[in-house]
Amino acid sequence: MSHSIYAKHQDLLASAVHAIDSRGYWSPYEENPRVFGESAVEAGREAFEAYRDAQFYLDQPGLIGRGGGEESPYGIVLNISYPKCGTDALIAAAKGAMSSWVKAGPDTRVAVCAEILARLHDRACEMAFAVMHTTGQPFNMAYQSGPQALDRGLEAVALAWREMKHVPYRAIWEKPQAGKPSLRVAKEYLIAPRGVALVVACSTSPTWSSYPGLFASLATGNAVIVKPHPGAILPLAITVAVARQTLKELGFEPDLVSLLVDTQAAPVAREVATKPDIRLIDYTGGPEFCQWLRENAGQARVFAETAGVNCMVLDSTDDYAGLLRNLAITLSLYSGQMCATPQVLLVSREGLKTPEGLVSSEQFGRDLAMAVGQLLEEPARAAEILGAIQSPATLGRIDACRELGEVLRDSTTVEHPRFPAARIHSPLLLKVPVSALDAYGEERFGPISFIVDTASTSESLATAERLMRERGAITFLVYAVDPTIRELAEETALRAEVSLTFNFTGGLLVNQSAAFSDFHATGANPAANACITDGSFVADRFVVIQSQRPAP
Amino acid sequence: MSHSIYAKHQDLLASAVHAIDSRGYWSPYEENPRVFGESAVEAGREAFEAYRDAQFYLDQPGLIGRGGGEESPYGIVLNISYPKCGTDALIAAAKGAMSSWVKAGPDTRVAVCAEILARLHDRACEMAFAVMHTTGQPFNMAYQSGPQALDRGLEAVALAWREMKHVPYRAIWEKPQAGKPSLRVAKEYLIAPRGVALVVACSTSPTWSSYPGLFASLATGNAVIVKPHPGAILPLAITVAVARQTLKELGFEPDLVSLLVDTQAAPVAREVATKPDIRLIDYTGGPEFCQWLRENAGQARVFAETAGVNCMVLDSTDDYAGLLRNLAITLSLYSGQMCATPQVLLVSREGLKTPEGLVSSEQFGRDLAMAVGQLLEEPARAAEILGAIQSPATLGRIDACRELGEVLRDSTTVEHPRFPAARIHSPLLLKVPVSALDAYGEERFGPISFIVDTASTSESLATAERLMRERGAITFLVYAVDPTIRELAEETALRAEVSLTFNFTGGLLVNQSAAFSDFHATGANPAANACITDGSFVADRFVVIQSQRPAP
Repeated sequence: MSHSIYAKHQDLLASAVHAIDSRGYWSPYEENPRVFGESAVEAGREAFEAYRDAQFYLDQPGLIGRGGGEESPYGIVLNISYPKCGTDALIAAAKGAMSSWVKAGPDTRVAVCAEILARLHDRACEMAFAVMHTTGQPFNMAYQSGPQALDRGLEAVALAWREMKHVPYRAIWEKPQAGKPSLRVAKEYLIAPRGVALVVACSTSPTWSSYPGLFASLATGNAVIVKPHPGAILPLAITVAVARQTLKELGFEPDLVSLLVDTQAAPVAREVATKPDIRLIDYTGGPEFCQWLRENAGQARVFAETAGVNCMVLDSTDDYAGLLRNLAITLSLYSGQMCATPQVLLVSREGLKTPEGLVSSEQFGRDLAMAVGQLLEEPARAAEILGAIQSPATLGRIDACRELGEVLRDSTTVEHPRFPAARIHSPLLLKVPVSALDAYGEERFGPISFIVDTASTSESLATAERLMRERGAITFLVYAVDPTIRELAEETALRAEVSLTFNFTGGLLVNQSAAFSDFHATGANPAANACITDGSFVADRFVVIQSQRPAP
Repeated sequence: MSHSIYAKHQDLLASAVHAIDSRGYWSPYEENPRVFGESAVEAGREAFEAYRDAQFYLDQPGLIGRGGGEESPYGIVLNISYPKCGTDALIAAAKGAMSSWVKAGPDTRVAVCAEILARLHDRACEMAFAVMHTTGQPFNMAYQSGPQALDRGLEAVALAWREMKHVPYRAIWEKPQAGKPSLRVAKEYLIAPRGVALVVACSTSPTWSSYPGLFASLATGNAVIVKPHPGAILPLAITVAVARQTLKELGFEPDLVSLLVDTQAAPVAREVATKPDIRLIDYTGGPEFCQWLRENAGQARVFAETAGVNCMVLDSTDDYAGLLRNLAITLSLYSGQMCATPQVLLVSREGLKTPEGLVSSEQFGRDLAMAVGQLLEEPARAAEILGAIQSPATLGRIDACRELGEVLRDSTTVEHPRFPAARIHSPLLLKVPVSALDAYGEERFGPISFIVDTASTSESLATAERLMRERGAITFLVYAVDPTIRELAEETALRAEVSLTFNFTGGLLVNQSAAFSDFHATGANPAANACITDGSFVADRFVVIQSQRPAP
């Protein structure tokens, strides 16, 4: 069975490693649900509907009750309950499950991971509804985030495989000795896990953000406990159920992957994160908990992606209309609830150079506000771009931020054609002087952006650099046609240790990251301590235990 | 110049990567000084003699005086002074030196590192005397530690190269769009350093322990500040001088590698380790400073190898005489001042099974004491095996440990034929019951070992497991002919996460680690948090800064 599962996925894995090493476009998973036919989408909807007002089934140890309580940002009642299991029981089961998993070896483990991903792909339409009604993502994006999450999972599995394959199973070490027989030692190298891994997921991209850590840890031999955000449990409950079923069918312990459910009122993340057996933690979320982990979970290696203040510098463009269109979509997509959406748009008072002449920063503000307005004019289309606001706290933030500057475009509610209670709000666009650092200089998660007036592009770059160094950033977007300015921007990006994007005007969005190609975060500024998509994300998740003896 | 240096070392580097991935025996450096002829050894001695009673020349910034004060464990006067430079000046110079080093790219950087190693190889005989008269290593071992340190440096360079080569310089990402032109993005990937690296070296293996971190950091683009132990400065001063000279000749900033000298009375390690610009620290030494780094140098990634209690379990052997000879050398070599020397020898009261019958633990103690005595009978030979005791503190420890158990073989002073003031002491061998955990259960650095009486081999394994898990271990040596016992030992090693060696009786010593083949430490027990010889040792020393723009 183990051998055949490896035979089944070997080519896929080899292609994934090749993609990572060459970094062109590649994806084995289908991004368009229509390819499967309308009936597949309908079947997915029905599967999702079956979860509502029901008990989600998971046969896990240490059951102590049931929990849950997610609310759909689209206003429909979910009423799904999940098994609540004791932390210690899950950890004990996870520890017990690793022995045969370790012995199975790297090839089998990565193939089993690929099989889990394939089975999740079969559930893509069901997953899309689960993601939509927990995160508030619009349906098409919720669908796409499925294959994109699978891409990221496979990317982590392939990285782990590449790293583990550097270690041979065995070797003969033979050292010549002058005038004597050689010294010969037979060595065996066993890849051993770090221990139990914990994944603490976020509410806006529960699968996309957590699959890399989940699959990187699992592939390298660790058992994984998944703790979803209490606001977005269902996508990870489905994930865990599929993983457990696959493991069981293939002859491994299902307790290698388990779900730990909690509520906003009674969170368990701190308790589980400090257990001595938890040796790896992958976390996506706010910076406070990240800091807390750093100070309190010293027994574990922590991979964290947290908040940042993504910056944009606008100097010049050869396609002003394309720039406006691009930014309108970039700022509106999923209401800015993406880790890579720009928040701070720095424009010099000297104006933005365009083929049609200089555009003053005032004019740019009006033009961008109008471009956003046009994009979202038609409510049904607006809803399909904006999605819904995941957390009521984000609504409160929009209200509070109105006071922070001159309102260029106010955030308004948008009616959803099918979900009257949906929490849909268009972007808030503010204008502030560069001196108003308190306003724009911290993350304002949600559809909130600031056009910041500076004296010159040099000041824009310097302001962006300081912000990104001190507060972190995932993306840094620069519009510049002058190579000298681009060079300055490259130096800025190097010093701030942030990835840099120039002149996106067409269908390319800075807040969409491409698996197998992009280094999504550098891991070197405060927005993230890990790059997720490189060797360092996997290399520390296993150790090598050597056993040697004299060879005949 | 850059291209030609890569051409010069490309084959060597490729061979090194191949050696790491296949893990057989390989070394490009000559282990026997006689190969170069007696005149080379004499020339090395003369070069060493020229350092005595002199000022060591290093053209470093921030000079504030001169320091030093090493004492030879062989009792000769060294009286070497080194430039003392301000920490901030060295850090500022290091930061300034990185820009052109980063731009040179991975291939050139690893080739320059290989060139530094080649020039250090040219100085092997001189280095042997420098190592001998600071560490106390016997001359032959001091010589061999040169090529072995170079092996380790090259191993780290090759690991870094392999990891960096996974990142292409650039890629075109082209995503097909249904009914529309493809999306095309041109991406560039720059490997950027973490920052300034610090190497804090130890007194007993100053080059062998510090070359991996030094060269791993340098190859990945970081500047490195080397802080030698105040008792063993000269080997690293020569290393830094050669590195600076090579960098300068090849057109790079010499300040990429600098020497930070301190004294026992006025240490600077804590001050420099907590500077915000120090982002990588490689440390070899005692556990107290390791713990302090963990608590206070949170801005840096720390790779540490510290103390452990290496264990040995003796169940059975098919070559009792070979076992005794092997252990006598293992325990005597460099007076047990090696991180991999066993300290705790667990023997069951049921006796050690040999072809000649059961040997009681009492008899084994007497036999081992006699084997050590025979090995060291002749003073000149004894001195060549034992070397000298590096630190007076170790002498104090020998005295204090005599009280801890029944003395099977007392430590005695040994006369060196040429150095009458040499600090040479034979091994102290004690016998204690398994209940005397306070005696044998912590590291007693130096020529001190304990034969521990247990009820059974099972108790021996359980005792070793607990000790190695809690106190850490680099090596775990087991003598067992019964495959069932070997399986139990393998499970013990897995749980304690320590490398395991069976039945070494010939010329193979458990305390000699082979570069390119051995996973020297697992990095998973308290003796070390890093394996040194795997991908995780290098992967976190650099980040990737991506720059992308629409492709035509």
